[in-house]
Amino acid sequence: MTVRQKLYEGKAKIIYVTDDPNILLTHFKDDATAFNAQKRGSIVGKGEMNCAISSHLFQQLEARGIRTHWIDRPSPNEMRVKAVKILPIEVVVRNIAAGSLCQQTGIPLGTVLQQPLVEFYYKNDDLGDPLLTLDRLLLLELATPEQVDQLRATALQINQLLSEFFQNCDITLVDFKLEFGLDATGDLLLADEISPDTCRLWNQAVTDPTQRVMDKDRFRHDLGNVEDAYRQVLDRVLAQPIQP
Amino acid sequence: MTVRQKLYEGKAKIIYVTDDPNILLTHFKDDATAFNAQKRGSIVGKGEMNCAISSHLFQQLEARGIRTHWIDRPSPNEMRVKAVKILPIEVVVRNIAAGSLCQQTGIPLGTVLQQPLVEFYYKNDDLGDPLLTLDRLLLLELATPEQVDQLRATALQINQLLSEFFQNCDITLVDFKLEFGLDATGDLLLADEISPDTCRLWNQAVTDPTQRVMDKDRFRHDLGNVEDAYRQVLDRVLAQPIQP
Repeated sequence: MTVRQKLYEGKAKIIYVTDDPNILLTHFKDDATAFNAQKRGSIVGKGEMNCAISSHLFQQLEARGIRTHWIDRPSPNEMRVKAVKILPIEVVVRNIAAGSLCQQTGIPLGTVLQQPLVEFYYKNDDLGDPLLTLDRLLLLELATPEQVDQLRATALQINQLLSEFFQNCDITLVDFKLEFGLDATGDLLLADEISPDTCRLWNQAVTDPTQRVMDKDRFRHDLGNVEDAYRQVLDRVLAQPIQP
Repeated sequence: MTVRQKLYEGKAKIIYVTDDPNILLTHFKDDATAFNAQKRGSIVGKGEMNCAISSHLFQQLEARGIRTHWIDRPSPNEMRVKAVKILPIEVVVRNIAAGSLCQQTGIPLGTVLQQPLVEFYYKNDDLGDPLLTLDRLLLLELATPEQVDQLRATALQINQLLSEFFQNCDITLVDFKLEFGLDATGDLLLADEISPDTCRLWNQAVTDPTQRVMDKDRFRHDLGNVEDAYRQVLDRVLAQPIQP
């Protein structure tokens, strides 16, 4: 495989085209941003760690019947993926109230939700990735009603699988963000990444609200030991064998 | 009727209790605020004008079968209303894209929506009146699913009646905000006010996007001639007889 040219450079990843038009190469960067890129920095080793964590989780999800864009991991910070057209929607699943949900509703941090909450955000940097009502999503024609139903159902299924997986790592899956894409035949595949950049993960052995954080909130809120937290997640994730 | 004591003072109105526990007195102020009270000012005569416009529109809606809190208008800037428990929800109906819808979705100002959009916002100054998804509204227990259905249906019905009314005034009803309350028996009544403070109204005879504005956007965006615009709305509204 010969790496050809940059297709797209995002905040945490670079996408390259390959010889095969159906395959893209994702390069994971150490760069970190937060608050719609108003805060910028770098987390040493993040590219490799997130690539490894994502690869393991995509494989685990595939083993349980979730279709993802993942193909393989040709080098430590590179992932080969199926070329898909990414929907401009961030699908967020929340098990416990944190982040913008708390800020926008006043629900206290850490409130366990009676049932998982699936939310849609408009993937649009210029607009600051705003929350979407179902009506707004459909008005903007970001997806069809059928695709919305499928996104919601798949996100809930993924939540169940990942919550169970992280439970085995003694980690609580608080919330996470997913992106999906359509392949050439119009099928919906889970895309992007699943990592401490895109999940809120709390160490179950720790009760202190700042010490328990094992995800990008350490970077967002200057909690320190960011690399250590990511390394801990990596070690625990990789220690779990993929279970069909 | 003896005015007793202040029950509540808001940004544009003061609510007084009366001798009758089922009746409240609403005093309309000239005070104007915008952007969650970050901008403050005064619009001369607004209290009387909004009280007169609201009274006329409530009566028109009642004549067409919409239940409202309106009783009568004992003085130019005072309205007697049925005592209700206000739901902490702002129900917004949009016919044409404007304001926060444009800012949050990128839809251009003035885009005619294929069908009216009903949106719910959390009436909460501390949180900045954030947009609510249906799931968040229910999670916060701001209303029951049945009440939400009724709010949506009633809001659409009111939109049809008011759009027709303003059409007869050569005014386009762009969007508007409603508040509802529950009376002692749990019935839902339209409450608050309907005025240039709570509606976006465009003069149909004018095409210039700043000149056509006949509502609080003149105050929000320093477009000048605020009092004149409100007076124009008042004159045109009162010129329309109430039609059963």
